[in-house]
Amino acid sequence: MTDSAAGDSGDTRDDSSPVVYDLDSDCSLADVEVGEHYRATVNGVVDYGVFVDISEKLSGLVHESNMDGESFELGDELVVVLEEVKGNGDISFGLAEDDEYRTVSVEHEPEITTVSRLQIGREVTVEGEVVQIKQTGGPTIFHVGDESGIVAAAAFEEAGVRAYPEIDVGDLVRVAGTAEEHDGALQLEADAVTVLEDETAATARERLDRELAERAEPAQVEPLVEWDAFEKLRPDLEEVATLLRRTVLEGRPIRIRHHADGDGMCAAIPVQLALENFIRSVHADSGAALHHLKRLPSKAPFYEMEDVTRDLNFALEGRARHGQKLPFLLMLDNGSTEEDVPAYKNLAHYDMPIAVVDHHHPDPDAVDDLLDAHVNPYLHDEDYRITTGMMCVELARMIDPDVTDDLRHVPAVAGLSDRSKAEVMDEFVELAGTVGYDRRELEDVGEALDYAAHWLRYSEGKTLVNDVLNVGCEDEERHEELVDFLAARAEEDVDRQLEAVEPHVEHETLESDAHLYRVDLERFAHRFTYPAPGKTTGELHDLKVREHGEPVITIGYGPDFAVLRSDGVRLDIPQMVTELNEEIVGGGVSGGGHLVVGSIKFVKGRREDVIDALVEKMGDAAIDEELSTTVSIGE
Amino acid sequence: MTDSAAGDSGDTRDDSSPVVYDLDSDCSLADVEVGEHYRATVNGVVDYGVFVDISEKLSGLVHESNMDGESFELGDELVVVLEEVKGNGDISFGLAEDDEYRTVSVEHEPEITTVSRLQIGREVTVEGEVVQIKQTGGPTIFHVGDESGIVAAAAFEEAGVRAYPEIDVGDLVRVAGTAEEHDGALQLEADAVTVLEDETAATARERLDRELAERAEPAQVEPLVEWDAFEKLRPDLEEVATLLRRTVLEGRPIRIRHHADGDGMCAAIPVQLALENFIRSVHADSGAALHHLKRLPSKAPFYEMEDVTRDLNFALEGRARHGQKLPFLLMLDNGSTEEDVPAYKNLAHYDMPIAVVDHHHPDPDAVDDLLDAHVNPYLHDEDYRITTGMMCVELARMIDPDVTDDLRHVPAVAGLSDRSKAEVMDEFVELAGTVGYDRRELEDVGEALDYAAHWLRYSEGKTLVNDVLNVGCEDEERHEELVDFLAARAEEDVDRQLEAVEPHVEHETLESDAHLYRVDLERFAHRFTYPAPGKTTGELHDLKVREHGEPVITIGYGPDFAVLRSDGVRLDIPQMVTELNEEIVGGGVSGGGHLVVGSIKFVKGRREDVIDALVEKMGDAAIDEELSTTVSIGE
Amino acid sequence: MTDSAAGDSGDTRDDSSPVVYDLDSDCSLADVEVGEHYRATVNGVVDYGVFVDISEKLSGLVHESNMDGESFELGDELVVVLEEVKGNGDISFGLAEDDEYRTVSVEHEPEITTVSRLQIGREVTVEGEVVQIKQTGGPTIFHVGDESGIVAAAAFEEAGVRAYPEIDVGDLVRVAGTAEEHDGALQLEADAVTVLEDETAATARERLDRELAERAEPAQVEPLVEWDAFEKLRPDLEEVATLLRRTVLEGRPIRIRHHADGDGMCAAIPVQLALENFIRSVHADSGAALHHLKRLPSKAPFYEMEDVTRDLNFALEGRARHGQKLPFLLMLDNGSTEEDVPAYKNLAHYDMPIAVVDHHHPDPDAVDDLLDAHVNPYLHDEDYRITTGMMCVELARMIDPDVTDDLRHVPAVAGLSDRSKAEVMDEFVELAGTVGYDRRELEDVGEALDYAAHWLRYSEGKTLVNDVLNVGCEDEERHEELVDFLAARAEEDVDRQLEAVEPHVEHETLESDAHLYRVDLERFAHRFTYPAPGKTTGELHDLKVREHGEPVITIGYGPDFAVLRSDGVRLDIPQMVTELNEEIVGGGVSGGGHLVVGSIKFVKGRREDVIDALVEKMGDAAIDEELSTTVSIGE
Repeated sequence: MTDSAAGDSGDTRDDSSPVVYDLDSDCSLADVEVGEHYRATVNGVVDYGVFVDISEKLSGLVHESNMDGESFELGDELVVVLEEVKGNGDISFGLAEDDEYRTVSVEHEPEITTVSRLQIGREVTVEGEVVQIKQTGGPTIFHVGDESGIVAAAAFEEAGVRAYPEIDVGDLVRVAGTAEEHDGALQLEADAVTVLEDETAATARERLDRELAERAEPAQVEPLVEWDAFEKLRPDLEEVATLLRRTVLEGRPIRIRHHADGDGMCAAIPVQLALENFIRSVHADSGAALHHLKRLPSKAPFYEMEDVTRDLNFALEGRARHGQKLPFLLMLDNGSTEEDVPAYKNLAHYDMPIAVVDHHHPDPDAVDDLLDAHVNPYLHDEDYRITTGMMCVELARMIDPDVTDDLRHVPAVAGLSDRSKAEVMDEFVELAGTVGYDRRELEDVGEALDYAAHWLRYSEGKTLVNDVLNVGCEDEERHEELVDFLAARAEEDVDRQLEAVEPHVEHETLESDAHLYRVDLERFAHRFTYPAPGKTTGELHDLKVREHGEPVITIGYGPDFAVLRSDGVRLDIPQMVTELNEEIVGGGVSGGGHLVVGSIKFVKGRREDVIDALVEKMGDAAIDEELSTTVSIGE
Repeated sequence: MTDSAAGDSGDTRDDSSPVVYDLDSDCSLADVEVGEHYRATVNGVVDYGVFVDISEKLSGLVHESNMDGESFELGDELVVVLEEVKGNGDISFGLAEDDEYRTVSVEHEPEITTVSRLQIGREVTVEGEVVQIKQTGGPTIFHVGDESGIVAAAAFEEAGVRAYPEIDVGDLVRVAGTAEEHDGALQLEADAVTVLEDETAATARERLDRELAERAEPAQVEPLVEWDAFEKLRPDLEEVATLLRRTVLEGRPIRIRHHADGDGMCAAIPVQLALENFIRSVHADSGAALHHLKRLPSKAPFYEMEDVTRDLNFALEGRARHGQKLPFLLMLDNGSTEEDVPAYKNLAHYDMPIAVVDHHHPDPDAVDDLLDAHVNPYLHDEDYRITTGMMCVELARMIDPDVTDDLRHVPAVAGLSDRSKAEVMDEFVELAGTVGYDRRELEDVGEALDYAAHWLRYSEGKTLVNDVLNVGCEDEERHEELVDFLAARAEEDVDRQLEAVEPHVEHETLESDAHLYRVDLERFAHRFTYPAPGKTTGELHDLKVREHGEPVITIGYGPDFAVLRSDGVRLDIPQMVTELNEEIVGGGVSGGGHLVVGSIKFVKGRREDVIDALVEKMGDAAIDEELSTTVSIGE
Repeated sequence: MTDSAAGDSGDTRDDSSPVVYDLDSDCSLADVEVGEHYRATVNGVVDYGVFVDISEKLSGLVHESNMDGESFELGDELVVVLEEVKGNGDISFGLAEDDEYRTVSVEHEPEITTVSRLQIGREVTVEGEVVQIKQTGGPTIFHVGDESGIVAAAAFEEAGVRAYPEIDVGDLVRVAGTAEEHDGALQLEADAVTVLEDETAATARERLDRELAERAEPAQVEPLVEWDAFEKLRPDLEEVATLLRRTVLEGRPIRIRHHADGDGMCAAIPVQLALENFIRSVHADSGAALHHLKRLPSKAPFYEMEDVTRDLNFALEGRARHGQKLPFLLMLDNGSTEEDVPAYKNLAHYDMPIAVVDHHHPDPDAVDDLLDAHVNPYLHDEDYRITTGMMCVELARMIDPDVTDDLRHVPAVAGLSDRSKAEVMDEFVELAGTVGYDRRELEDVGEALDYAAHWLRYSEGKTLVNDVLNVGCEDEERHEELVDFLAARAEEDVDRQLEAVEPHVEHETLESDAHLYRVDLERFAHRFTYPAPGKTTGELHDLKVREHGEPVITIGYGPDFAVLRSDGVRLDIPQMVTELNEEIVGGGVSGGGHLVVGSIKFVKGRREDVIDALVEKMGDAAIDEELSTTVSIGE
């Protein structure tokens, strides 16, 4: 019997008279202690004494020898002292001696079973926080989470009527009921759901917070390769891992938005796998991952209003229909820039935490106030060469270290896919070698991923891309054949595109001696097929660098956009956009990118002006041999 | 025992001999009356008389003292007179005296329970009309509606085999069974489903029709503000309210198609809310609103063949898969014009009633034959200034007056959103003031609604738009922040668009002294973003009116379309389209609109000809200061 | 007791000592034979002998008279001879005489119930092949197929835990359990699932293969009309029918991809109907057709990478989520050409069989290695005039002859829709006449089908198109009205399109005296509406042929495509494409078609060069009066 179980009816703490406990009818042995006083009622009179009840479950004998000759009749109320509890459960009492008592009510303190120990058929009491309340046409389903997991508890009031309307998400409750199988998952059929209050609640909250915080701690894993930049990023990644694990433990869904390219998928797929494993370990319903995690490739290189509107609407419907918390938004290989701000601001009105892991040039002043966590190598004097896939492989391992064996080749694919010249690249390629990939094969995986993503448009395509990346793929041979086929197809389609485009490429030598190539993709490229304008420009650029060496700038333009690539010339595209926007009135110029790669948009009717001005600026741009995006000639 | 329960076997009504009733085996006390004669069979012979059965449930004693010394053996058949029914249910009979009788068969007349009074666990008989028959892989589900509601009754013949194949939708039936919970909703497990016939059916039909007609009556609500035009429209709106309530009572689904702009949403959302409430009050299954009501924004300003084809296909699949009736189609802020006729004609082959509430210039000769109801201010010498949202707020209240408190600000939002200059506008704005909205805030709600609708494309986005409009929104603060944010974003995007467009606007002064502004939106506006060409033209036009005053005409054109706006010039766009179509052979000119706002389409290759001819016609158009669409300068 | 039931414990076959059988505890009368020896245990000693058990279910008396004065005690083990089994089931034994035995273990050989004979409530044992294993959050569901059908068996280990992890799809098993209703379908609640091994498995496999092969045999139906070409195609179609029936019997889903035009739908809809019927006859779950068959119209005239990526992803998710086999792909009116090869190669990495029924000019060298079956009239010296719809009506009847009465008009619709001049056309039209269609009505059905398909975009629209084609349509009158309306609308829209286009058509007379008409559809046709460019060109061409007679060539072109039609001129479009591609560097020319109809694509910027070169080639093309695609003048 704990203090917290003591009610306050008739309780005056400063009273010095001895305490007599008035037990709740369902109190059991766990609630009593030898030597204490209890209010009792006579339920049997025998030769050798009287039998008394101190609760419905606790009866025992006051032996004649303890009765001092007093006699009682059925129904008499008296105060007894608990003398002994025998091995067989028999209880014996003595009579109390005092006349005056301070009465303390005792509620039955049930034995608490943790969610992870539930067994079908057992009557149990679970204590935890309500994380979701779904009203069905029949019972109300309370999802309750304790330190060990989350379970659904069905409470029935009347068909379609909310049971326990006083209970809200976030409340700490005890659910007494029977663990049963329902639609295949373990579920509690609740007999009673009680909100914890006062001290009991405070104690439970403290314990739960402590244990969840402990369980949310990321796994302590050594990075796959030793890697200076990682040590700078490690605390940030650990913070995100903690947030994500905590999010799962609190029963909140997670929505992953990621860049739909090779690096973006190398980032998102490992994190998805690790989170699915962790969700499965937390929820009693083994199908919970389906409802609690969604990965979505983004069309744009930033978080568009259209995407956020759809996400928000989806989140609100999840709350309205299933009583789910609004999701945690995880942005991968996307989300660090000012262009993401309007979308974030839209979410700011709702309880939707956001974390970003990205390697695009960030604008922390603009975004950090809106984010719960922000990991970006630029924030630690590193740059885009540390790709998001490299970071997220470690993030995934912090969430669930068991995914490690599936991921050894992934950082290399991510890096090659993004043409990263990070120093750590060689080590990643070597690491991939230990699981059987050579550089060419890794590049093929990247190409195949890109090709599959293109044709999947913006659907998840989970099994297919997992097969291509060989993460959670069951059949190694299928993975290899699939990559061979898709990479070969991608190459054929690139060749076909370059064949159409190349005869129309215009060349000039800038004052800085850099070569400038430009081509009208609207007129001379196959449209609505693979490769799209961005990739087409990139492939053309790589070809020109291989043919002529650096410095080279390539512009692929359409009616209202231009894609830019440079090797050996410092473009500073954001700066150019700002200038163009001022110089060309009514040009509607916008866009962004790095120093050497980017894209800009403008209104169709000012294309010539914009591109002419752009080329002029490029003529003035500084040659910088350090700046290259392309694998060198002959490689 | 009612007359209708009397069968006609052996019944010759003109016979003067006394009546003896031959009871059906399941007849109970409710079917008999003291003093009447019944056919009986001896089932026990005792010292003091004989026990007889008059049905399986009704047995009693003929006491020796009543037997005149006659003796009977087990199984003997005789005619008895019901003498007494005691408080404990004991029944005593006498022997009948006559020799010749007219036999009347009596079927057991069960006690009928209305759907609204069903209680789980009770055996009951429900009487009503079959409104839906769904064949599952297991039982056949008959949805049965009486005057109080609709309940599903499951009848099992064999897995996947149609039970009672003789029963069709529309039949009147009695379902005897037990009320149980199934997947959370109350459902009857049917022991027997019997089709009512002849007189019983006729009586039931008459009663049901009368009571449903009564229940379908709209609520008698006073309009939110006193409003002359409303009084003209009131009977039409009441007719639509009655149709919709009756549709729900008959278990037919409803599909709302509406214009995807501010006024259209102010019309559709309140009606959706009211119908959902009413559906919930009618169906025993609290989730019924999901399957019985769907709101869909329409892409085009009319009912396109693509939309109707999808709607029809959806309706047919609902019938094929769920045995649902085809839906009632409710067109809001859309549907009054000749352009809608082909779509309506497509539906005419199917049992799909259609009602329209619209304020666009109607073509009643073309559409009225195809509609079940048509509400439009033009049909009562009013015009587009009475917006659909204004009308539909009253319609929603007629369907369910409890929605009133949620809607006081909605007519003002609708009107401002459509730039209505209705006289009643001031009163609506004032009304909105009583619930805390000033004019600027109301405009912001309209802008926010428009912006959200744009990014939702043509998905319903229910929770989000409800939050924006603050109808059924639970969190006032969230509503306000959301509106502030979206309205601000909308304004920024409009500014950005005008900044791109304005330098390219061409100005000329027409002979009529009207200013004409035109701009090529394909070349000079940002495409595929907010604001789209229609809204871009409108905003440009408003700007020009603010800058230069009326009369002003603005044309925003693309490769094969032009959007027209005028203040102070009477354009009569439909007339212009007719003329252009004749004058420009192969121009493929079509389109429509009001006197001051409209849009036309043409083939790309004749754009110059079409626009030149259009401008010439505009030069001849009459100046009319009454005609303005824009808030005046300085406001 | 069969040989296969004999285990090998202690079994040495060359031993000459007599056999004693050691029965498994659940052996029953079916496992024993009078005269054989069995190991027994004494379970009762009585005056007149001893009672012995030879299995838990088999006990009997050894009468004193048979005991030779030997005495036994409870629990003694002995060898007995089965002497008699009486009508009431009583069994009597004698004592065995020999001392030395060869012991043969006997497993209980349960009585096998076939799937088609399952009855709810019965305990049964089913033997068959595992065709699908779905892990739910609760039980594991094994779908087991025998020669009579497929049934789901639920085995529960622990919520969400895979039961019998050693069992794979393809294993032969015995399921002992109770037939119950679950979610409306009959399902086995499995008590035990045992994998068959060794001889038992081999025998069962042989029997199952034999019986499934027999059941997969197509129905022997006489063709609807006598038809020479059909006799050439019959064996190929029978092969496809066999493959499809076998696919259904093996529980593999089927995915139909078809050309989205009239002939394609006349091919796909009958096959879909027949397969649905057959699936229903095979599966215990009457809703199985929903999960096992999907029909999808294809956007492109070939199997695009986008379509195959989606199909593959869908297939993989079906396997991941539902444990389904990957589907069988059936390509109809599509799929014979080299353009389909990349898609097929993508599927080649997965277990997805493919069959094609097509009448487009095939490239068997390219595709046949990738296909399981390929039916095409060109492979038998016939040509496109034998349409796919004609072939598939017979294919559907081979799958399920009961569909015949629904299909008599379909070959004629297919042929007229594709403007076929096959000799058999007259007979098909006559056949359609016997069920009430005249030629004009058949053409209207084709037009209506085409129009409905256009507005359905690429959704299935099952009920609607079934109503239009009158296959599985329940209401003849609705069919007729629907066709009238849609055909009339289609005609109006064609007229409207021609009215826009015709004034812009350019005419020239080629050196060969053929008329050439060309028109820029991008500039002069209504876009994004019905009819699309292909059909617009066809209708224009037909009009010109009617006006001027043959030879006529028509070209409708857009920014990067051209549609070609010819009557009376041999174009050989594939050859032209090859030449154009060589001659116009950077033109990106691709495309294909027949000798008289086709389409080509190119990059926008080389359009003029491509079309000029094309026209020049057309000038040299041979006049061939045999080659016409159009109904002749005056018809």
